[in-house]
Amino acid sequence: MGELIFIGLGLGDERGITLRGLEEAKNADMVFAEFYTNYVPNSYIERLEALIGKRLQILGRIDLEDMVDERLLKPALSGRVALLVPGDPMIATTHMAIRLRASRLGIPTKVIHGVSIVTAVIAASGLQNYRFGQSVSMALEAGDWGEPSRTTYDVCAENLRRGLHTLIFLDFDAERGRYLSIKEAIERMIIMEERWREEVFVPRRLLVGAARVGSEDAIIRAHYLEEMAKLDFGEPPHVLILTGRLHFMEVEALLCLAKAPKDIGPLRFEGP
Amino acid sequence: MGELIFIGLGLGDERGITLRGLEEAKNADMVFAEFYTNYVPNSYIERLEALIGKRLQILGRIDLEDMVDERLLKPALSGRVALLVPGDPMIATTHMAIRLRASRLGIPTKVIHGVSIVTAVIAASGLQNYRFGQSVSMALEAGDWGEPSRTTYDVCAENLRRGLHTLIFLDFDAERGRYLSIKEAIERMIIMEERWREEVFVPRRLLVGAARVGSEDAIIRAHYLEEMAKLDFGEPPHVLILTGRLHFMEVEALLCLAKAPKDIGPLRFEGP
Repeated sequence: MGELIFIGLGLGDERGITLRGLEEAKNADMVFAEFYTNYVPNSYIERLEALIGKRLQILGRIDLEDMVDERLLKPALSGRVALLVPGDPMIATTHMAIRLRASRLGIPTKVIHGVSIVTAVIAASGLQNYRFGQSVSMALEAGDWGEPSRTTYDVCAENLRRGLHTLIFLDFDAERGRYLSIKEAIERMIIMEERWREEVFVPRRLLVGAARVGSEDAIIRAHYLEEMAKLDFGEPPHVLILTGRLHFMEVEALLCLAKAPKDIGPLRFEGP
Repeated sequence: MGELIFIGLGLGDERGITLRGLEEAKNADMVFAEFYTNYVPNSYIERLEALIGKRLQILGRIDLEDMVDERLLKPALSGRVALLVPGDPMIATTHMAIRLRASRLGIPTKVIHGVSIVTAVIAASGLQNYRFGQSVSMALEAGDWGEPSRTTYDVCAENLRRGLHTLIFLDFDAERGRYLSIKEAIERMIIMEERWREEVFVPRRLLVGAARVGSEDAIIRAHYLEEMAKLDFGEPPHVLILTGRLHFMEVEALLCLAKAPKDIGPLRFEGP
């Protein structure tokens, strides 16, 4: 009887995997991996192979979307098959679609959770988890610029109205070798603001930018929107937080851990 | 020069730790651990000590809140001190307060992220991360029942109005040996609904209940509120999700992975 095991690789380098994840990968008959939904650093794959003691078979978007039956699920009908995934599996819709497809084919599935950027960036920022509203993403659309997304703008506006923070995921496409940087994301925010003018992405809006969370050279910085675009965050992945009303302990955390400007204080909440 | 390293232990048993976390714990001069902000299973501590190869010094609430300078920060002024924490550190306010206190004393700090229930339960449920609104918790108040929380009710109501899901954390207090079960949480929901009558916790509201996420005997079940209270989820920790509008893929995931009742379909969104 076969089995399909999704294993989260967590963040940073190959040491982001849990002991349970490593054990399951070692016990699998075949180990596949996908690295197109998230960024992984150079030489990561070789070090992961050394750790597991097995050759990894890397699957791309086409393998997992159009050819998933043949490439992944057929072997899982009879053997123990592991699919390694950066971060936590199932946060990406692709993985859930594969899991449901496997279930329909009668293949038992299991998930070994990994550290996700969703909680790690919140924890690293010093902001409080229960003060976040709905999260959004900024996509790498068809063109390099694409159309600004009204949904992204509206979710940010609604969270601000309720005093909540917004986690903004910046798209990454490994196969096209493109990712959205914090600088580019802010340029888009300015375009959105010029178009819709609801005082969401104003120059004095406090943002938190983070790069490479979970790795040794992670950077986390809080600054006003107009200043944030000038900072250099280096290599991907990048992520942004739009802050809402700040608790006094969040203010202290941003000052202490994210080099926030000294005047952020526990100010009265302003607009939209 | 000292250092304070917060290490997330992740979920389930001792194999929930990442390789990076284990490495840091092994390299520390002193290893402390706290288990009062989250539930850990029996014999967990012994197995963790065997894994790290060091004796753990267990700290309670008083050690980390009133006596933190003496118990934890004084050793960290001169040595490499690790504090092991269930799940991901910094999600609990206590850990952030300690980190800020350490920074004020000039002690460098570092966080090794762990798998958090926040993302793991969302991933395990098959619901989509970006369709969640603000999360809430239900506290074990002064009495065994305490007062129903208007904030909890209002956040759930607001998320429902926007069609969003709500992650509801159920409080756990290891030192009092008490935790809030799914059954008790639903009893409280019914009391809240009788008091405020905004059709938030109505009998046909679809909930997702989960127990022991990340461990081998995890349970995840979707059912209507009136039926959910009859299910036995066993040992803690428990967590609940109040569902908002469902995407068709979420419907399929709940049917397939959480044994949802067959009539949940992609119904029109109803109230409040």
